[in-house]
Amino acid sequence: MHLQVTQENLNKALGTVARVASARGTLPVLANVLIKTVNNRLSIAATNLDIAITQYIGAKVTTDGAITVPARLMQDFINSLPGGVIDLKLDEYKLHIATDQYQSVINGVSAEEFPVMPAITDGKTWTVPAPVLKKGLQQVILAASGDEARPVLTGVYLHTAEGKLYMAATDSYRLAEKELLATSEEIDLLVPVSAMQDLLRIVSDVDEDVTVTSDDQQVLFRVGDIELVARLIEGKYPDYRKLIPASFATSAQLKRTDLLNATKVSSLFARESAGSITLNVDETTQELSIRSVASQLGENTAKAVAKVTGSGAITLNSRYLLDALHVLSGEDVDFAFNGKLEPVVLRDTAAADYVHIIMPLKS
Amino acid sequence: MHLQVTQENLNKALGTVARVASARGTLPVLANVLIKTVNNRLSIAATNLDIAITQYIGAKVTTDGAITVPARLMQDFINSLPGGVIDLKLDEYKLHIATDQYQSVINGVSAEEFPVMPAITDGKTWTVPAPVLKKGLQQVILAASGDEARPVLTGVYLHTAEGKLYMAATDSYRLAEKELLATSEEIDLLVPVSAMQDLLRIVSDVDEDVTVTSDDQQVLFRVGDIELVARLIEGKYPDYRKLIPASFATSAQLKRTDLLNATKVSSLFARESAGSITLNVDETTQELSIRSVASQLGENTAKAVAKVTGSGAITLNSRYLLDALHVLSGEDVDFAFNGKLEPVVLRDTAAADYVHIIMPLKS
Repeated sequence: MHLQVTQENLNKALGTVARVASARGTLPVLANVLIKTVNNRLSIAATNLDIAITQYIGAKVTTDGAITVPARLMQDFINSLPGGVIDLKLDEYKLHIATDQYQSVINGVSAEEFPVMPAITDGKTWTVPAPVLKKGLQQVILAASGDEARPVLTGVYLHTAEGKLYMAATDSYRLAEKELLATSEEIDLLVPVSAMQDLLRIVSDVDEDVTVTSDDQQVLFRVGDIELVARLIEGKYPDYRKLIPASFATSAQLKRTDLLNATKVSSLFARESAGSITLNVDETTQELSIRSVASQLGENTAKAVAKVTGSGAITLNSRYLLDALHVLSGEDVDFAFNGKLEPVVLRDTAAADYVHIIMPLKS
Repeated sequence: MHLQVTQENLNKALGTVARVASARGTLPVLANVLIKTVNNRLSIAATNLDIAITQYIGAKVTTDGAITVPARLMQDFINSLPGGVIDLKLDEYKLHIATDQYQSVINGVSAEEFPVMPAITDGKTWTVPAPVLKKGLQQVILAASGDEARPVLTGVYLHTAEGKLYMAATDSYRLAEKELLATSEEIDLLVPVSAMQDLLRIVSDVDEDVTVTSDDQQVLFRVGDIELVARLIEGKYPDYRKLIPASFATSAQLKRTDLLNATKVSSLFARESAGSITLNVDETTQELSIRSVASQLGENTAKAVAKVTGSGAITLNSRYLLDALHVLSGEDVDFAFNGKLEPVVLRDTAAADYVHIIMPLKS
């Protein structure tokens, strides 16, 4: 293998893929990135067996070849080099990297030891604009569970219902659902949240379409020169939609930043009580107030003007409420519930395509 | 105690002082800030017994008084409030804090339990412009030791010699000295580096003069409305100046960023060898080159053009060299030494007021 690439392109590709690489007990080669010539381009790939990310970059290839090298060293090294042309030359398992000022040798491991994710054959393909996917991921990912005891809840659920594609996640304490687009496809994919976090990074500064291809086992997201393949989670996703109430006894409409600030201040006094804060919605005064009490430290009451229909009180984990208010991006927010043991529903007043549910704490 | 302050002023004062507060085993009140009316102003103070910081802010005082409240809660709380007037009212040991939208009670502890640092009487006073002090601290602090086994080396040494004031620090592996200003005073102060780090924060965005007052035990830095008092370290500072060579067998003059980049890249291959890199200065090729070898990972050679007098090689800890190159701020740097076991001296080519010394590693 002998080729030239620019530092800028190689650095960008390593930045995209290297995060996935990390040593696992029996497979040290997973801490490496695979560097391989493919049709006069260079492919840079990393995998942790659940997720694989590959980026293709332009290269001036003199001789074909492939090698794996330690991901962290390679990324830090290329990142430290000045911009311009880099010469890569493989001599057995030693990768020689040269610029005007720097001469390096990085000891590699044979590309044959690098595990390859099976190809998707006979898959279904559809597309979604990157900004739509990005916004959905930003609003939904946070509700997925990190607890491996219930694997289906560690997934983000992409599915169609009545001609629309939805993205949803829940950890059973909270739930987020985003309507992405209208489609005639039938889609039903449960993607690990870790893959979705990587995908969010990848689509963050992209405007083009993302092409999604899947079979029973895997899903491939392709955007520009980048491919992300993830194993799907097996199992049936809970019928979460039955949890979303259709009508409410109590509802308040207020400025999102007012509710956010009141929750932030209240949460400071809720540290002793694991974040527990009580929200009071008062139809008479047309106010939402939050009370939190720390027996040692003191207590706080915060209030905000709201359009209220039906009085009521509910106790929530302030962290979940803060998370929800951060991903709701509109100016006004609807805060609604049916009683102190029923879920709270948060929506952007001006947009019907996103719903966020938080289960109450017992108080 | 009853008074009004602005959120902006109170927040700034808490930001200045609260960092010093933290609970110590037997004195939980040290985790609190002292809030006290003084001559129609409000003083906000925190101490860890070694350092005390006080900031005075304007206030509309109705009734005098004093209380201590938990520093972290108070800081986070005031920081979360919107800008504008805050009403503070003390009811026994409960501090009532009110704005239009927020009503809080923070449980305090009597101001009488708060330890007061003794006043400096009969002290000597001199001044230094804040930007001069800031630059000196930025260039010197990093060389102080964190090892309490040799307390004098955990100090920053302010002293006069031949009509000039110098600031110096050394951990015995490296040494930094900055000439601050000409003076007719006789100054000899050994200030804990932790106090100097706090002082650096305080003088960071200030242009005025800093007034320094000291006796045998303590030093007081006063800048604007802020006072920092620190206990001095006892003991005799080593006669470090005899370590600074007067002439050199080998010297290289090169762009600081060239040496910085070459060191950065080389340090990546020096992780296995505790940061050890070998610098070669070659009079024939007029180059400085750095070689680092990682038996497992690979090896690297980086080179830079330099004006060289006298060839030679020396092995250094790359972290120390990076630290020095970051605080040297000029365009060109002088790199000079007398043999592989003698100290390396780094200077800004265009400025004679700063010297940085690094002891070599055995190679």
